[in-house]
Amino acid sequence: MTGTASEIADTPLTVAGTPLGSRLVMGTGGAASLLALEDALVASGTELTTVAMRRVSRPAPGGTGGDTGVWGLLARLGIRALPNTAGCFSAREAVLTARLAREACATDWVKLEVIADDVTLLPDPVGLLEAARELVDDGFTVLPYTNDDPILARRLEDVGCAAVMPLGSPIGSGLGIANPRNIEAIAAAAAVPVILDAGIGTASDAALAMELGCDGVLLATAVTRAADPVRMARAMRRAVEAGYDAARAGRPPRREHALASSSPDGRVR
Amino acid sequence: MTGTASEIADTPLTVAGTPLGSRLVMGTGGAASLLALEDALVASGTELTTVAMRRVSRPAPGGTGGDTGVWGLLARLGIRALPNTAGCFSAREAVLTARLAREACATDWVKLEVIADDVTLLPDPVGLLEAARELVDDGFTVLPYTNDDPILARRLEDVGCAAVMPLGSPIGSGLGIANPRNIEAIAAAAAVPVILDAGIGTASDAALAMELGCDGVLLATAVTRAADPVRMARAMRRAVEAGYDAARAGRPPRREHALASSSPDGRVR
Amino acid sequence: MTGTASEIADTPLTVAGTPLGSRLVMGTGGAASLLALEDALVASGTELTTVAMRRVSRPAPGGTGGDTGVWGLLARLGIRALPNTAGCFSAREAVLTARLAREACATDWVKLEVIADDVTLLPDPVGLLEAARELVDDGFTVLPYTNDDPILARRLEDVGCAAVMPLGSPIGSGLGIANPRNIEAIAAAAAVPVILDAGIGTASDAALAMELGCDGVLLATAVTRAADPVRMARAMRRAVEAGYDAARAGRPPRREHALASSSPDGRVR
Amino acid sequence: MTGTASEIADTPLTVAGTPLGSRLVMGTGGAASLLALEDALVASGTELTTVAMRRVSRPAPGGTGGDTGVWGLLARLGIRALPNTAGCFSAREAVLTARLAREACATDWVKLEVIADDVTLLPDPVGLLEAARELVDDGFTVLPYTNDDPILARRLEDVGCAAVMPLGSPIGSGLGIANPRNIEAIAAAAAVPVILDAGIGTASDAALAMELGCDGVLLATAVTRAADPVRMARAMRRAVEAGYDAARAGRPPRREHALASSSPDGRVR
Repeated sequence: MTGTASEIADTPLTVAGTPLGSRLVMGTGGAASLLALEDALVASGTELTTVAMRRVSRPAPGGTGGDTGVWGLLARLGIRALPNTAGCFSAREAVLTARLAREACATDWVKLEVIADDVTLLPDPVGLLEAARELVDDGFTVLPYTNDDPILARRLEDVGCAAVMPLGSPIGSGLGIANPRNIEAIAAAAAVPVILDAGIGTASDAALAMELGCDGVLLATAVTRAADPVRMARAMRRAVEAGYDAARAGRPPRREHALASSSPDGRVR
Repeated sequence: MTGTASEIADTPLTVAGTPLGSRLVMGTGGAASLLALEDALVASGTELTTVAMRRVSRPAPGGTGGDTGVWGLLARLGIRALPNTAGCFSAREAVLTARLAREACATDWVKLEVIADDVTLLPDPVGLLEAARELVDDGFTVLPYTNDDPILARRLEDVGCAAVMPLGSPIGSGLGIANPRNIEAIAAAAAVPVILDAGIGTASDAALAMELGCDGVLLATAVTRAADPVRMARAMRRAVEAGYDAARAGRPPRREHALASSSPDGRVR
Repeated sequence: MTGTASEIADTPLTVAGTPLGSRLVMGTGGAASLLALEDALVASGTELTTVAMRRVSRPAPGGTGGDTGVWGLLARLGIRALPNTAGCFSAREAVLTARLAREACATDWVKLEVIADDVTLLPDPVGLLEAARELVDDGFTVLPYTNDDPILARRLEDVGCAAVMPLGSPIGSGLGIANPRNIEAIAAAAAVPVILDAGIGTASDAALAMELGCDGVLLATAVTRAADPVRMARAMRRAVEAGYDAARAGRPPRREHALASSSPDGRVR
Repeated sequence: MTGTASEIADTPLTVAGTPLGSRLVMGTGGAASLLALEDALVASGTELTTVAMRRVSRPAPGGTGGDTGVWGLLARLGIRALPNTAGCFSAREAVLTARLAREACATDWVKLEVIADDVTLLPDPVGLLEAARELVDDGFTVLPYTNDDPILARRLEDVGCAAVMPLGSPIGSGLGIANPRNIEAIAAAAAVPVILDAGIGTASDAALAMELGCDGVLLATAVTRAADPVRMARAMRRAVEAGYDAARAGRPPRREHALASSSPDGRVR
């Protein structure tokens, strides 16, 4: 008996021991409305979604997430909220924000961002590593947003981060994966999940990220700022699945020269 | 009420007035066995599959396709067979092969290949145009395999081809889409379906083809020669769907510089 | 005794038996003034420069080139004029223009352009081949401007063209070499000189063309429309020389992984 | 009167107040012999050349550089020697090596390398910044070899480095400039010279580095391991000059669509 599509074993993305039903991590920034965000999140199939602590109204103290705003939406949809420290420009600020998030949101998971400046929005490598170390020591499950340097990714893993999230290209640029070899090297070396974060502009970018060995893809504005966010969310969901499968299906090697699809006699028997 | 994924209108790929339920066109070359081919075809969801007239056993005369071999398989799966003229090195040879195919297979559809030589396997532009003209005049529905020259594509459409099928890169190379601008220009200008043919190596290539405006993707060895053809077939099916959606979802424009996903005050309401 | 730079043998570019002292072929279009053009031509070191028959004032009958305008300038500078058929949209028109050029300019060399339309400015492959055949039969030395299709390049050589001049990217786009593999394949297969024509935007593009195996580079607006045409001309001259040398110096192979520049013990003795 | 090539003002590369007659910085690793190295250095025109402190025999104490080996060669050729800390895997080791170099070589210039591991040969961003700070405080003129992260480059400049030397791609890979946008961003932001270091494989890579805004290019094995090092050295010298000029000549903007080199009436006057 032969295998069929439905029999292919799909291993879930597991972060810090928690399996997730989707390898697509969403962000909430850029959505035109909560309603539009809801539709896009549903279409994306995501089970993990970042929320900026400094940018949205926080849930009411008590940690249930409240019943209004983004927090309420995620709670209602059964999507795990991943607070992030977007807008923090120093390790100190990011650590403080993470601690506030833990209290307010009843989660010790944090997407750690330490941004160098508000023009490039690039991570500050030194501040990031410092904040990651401190938060890990403080019991957080840290998912750092990092540049695409394989060495920094290694250091972040070494200090105990639960995942590494290298950028494809700058936040909001939609330029895709600027340096595929770096992403491939990070994914090949990491023992923790690698989630491509920032720069995804369209479906093929997301598929490529997975083909390079990433374990997941995080994106926001490619969906939330698309003309049809639901359709783009669906595209991204399928692209991530497609790339995941393609990476495991054993593609034939690239060849510099043509090769007929069958040998000259070539009879399929 | 808001839109949901299931409400997105998907227009089928329509070739010569015939709607097809999938935008993924498969080839049969390179499959390890008929059984493996069957599994891959099913997983791909294809409804149109090419068969090399010069390479496989033809169906028995009478045009029903017989009940053995590739023809029988396609008939049993309800997949339309698209005879091709692979291995023809002149217009004359290709026209003759197309005519034999029409008699033997009871179809006037033909994937027209006029190959320049058996090293590059590149199309011969002059012979291709000549054969296309002759076959169209003879009542065929002609889908020509062509290089990525926008002008040749236009000429092929002008002589009455039902589709144009430009290469991404050489047959069997898996190098993807060498010149995306050319493919985009062909797709933007054509009034007939444009199906990317040759060079697809992995899922992101297929998604990109659709994002560039192609109406479909044709591939064979990326699936048939993969270590796990079923898994790669599934990947390709989803990638084509993802690219199709992404092309219609209105991606945000690429930006040379970063942009925060929410405005500084940035509150999602 | 060891070799030094001055001892490196430079083989001249030879077209139809005529050696040229420079591998940079210039065009005259786009220059702000004759004076600016003169300075740029001198700085470029070119010995062959195209002139559009349909666009500039022709030399006075008698074939000496006259003493005014572009023709007079080239004659004065000792630069061979290469009439081109820019602006011709059919084989018939191009052949006619070439014949007028031969009479007027006392040269049987022609840069053959058969342009498909005035939007893409891409070559019409069929009309080009037809015109090339006719002009070769008529005794012309034909240098055709073609797309980057290796098969069409071969056909042009087969009908007797003295060179083939594939585009890097569309005329005036400055997009560089869109499909390096095609250019490399054309150069590797051709027995006549291959001159990269169209698309060069900056010096590295010109160097790359030579590294891919081209025998020369033709460009116009990258120089004539630069803010400082003389400086860009000098850049292009050096870039062509650099690429020519690099192609012959035997570069070390690309490596996917790092390699220390000396072995661990590594002592240079 | 019009400008000519010889009148173009070339500003020299100036590092820490010292003008250099060439923008090509050479490395000595990989040379087959001292004689071959000498010929290549001469052909390159370089006035600054790195020497690995841990890999070659050091000059005799006293700082004159001795009269044998690489040091003697550089002294004889009048090329400034730039000791580097290649092979150092920690800030501590690099600082120690730099101090030994200063004593032995009578120079306080150092190319600072803090390598993360001997497989990737990538810089360790944290150790690099730490060592740079310490060496600057200690009076060194520090030229750090860094990754292509614009933020780390800024930090290195902030602590007082005299230049920043980002990689194009891994050492010895010859893969060129993996992420041109990063290099361009580094060059645009830096107030100190930016010298592209590592990854240059051929002349067009060197020209591109300069076009992206770099002030110089450092390379070794592309020349020393070429089949003809002298010829490749000459190619690199010209490529750097070409790229430098091209960056200052004001290239016409790239255009997605074709543009005739002259207007329809198009007469050059």
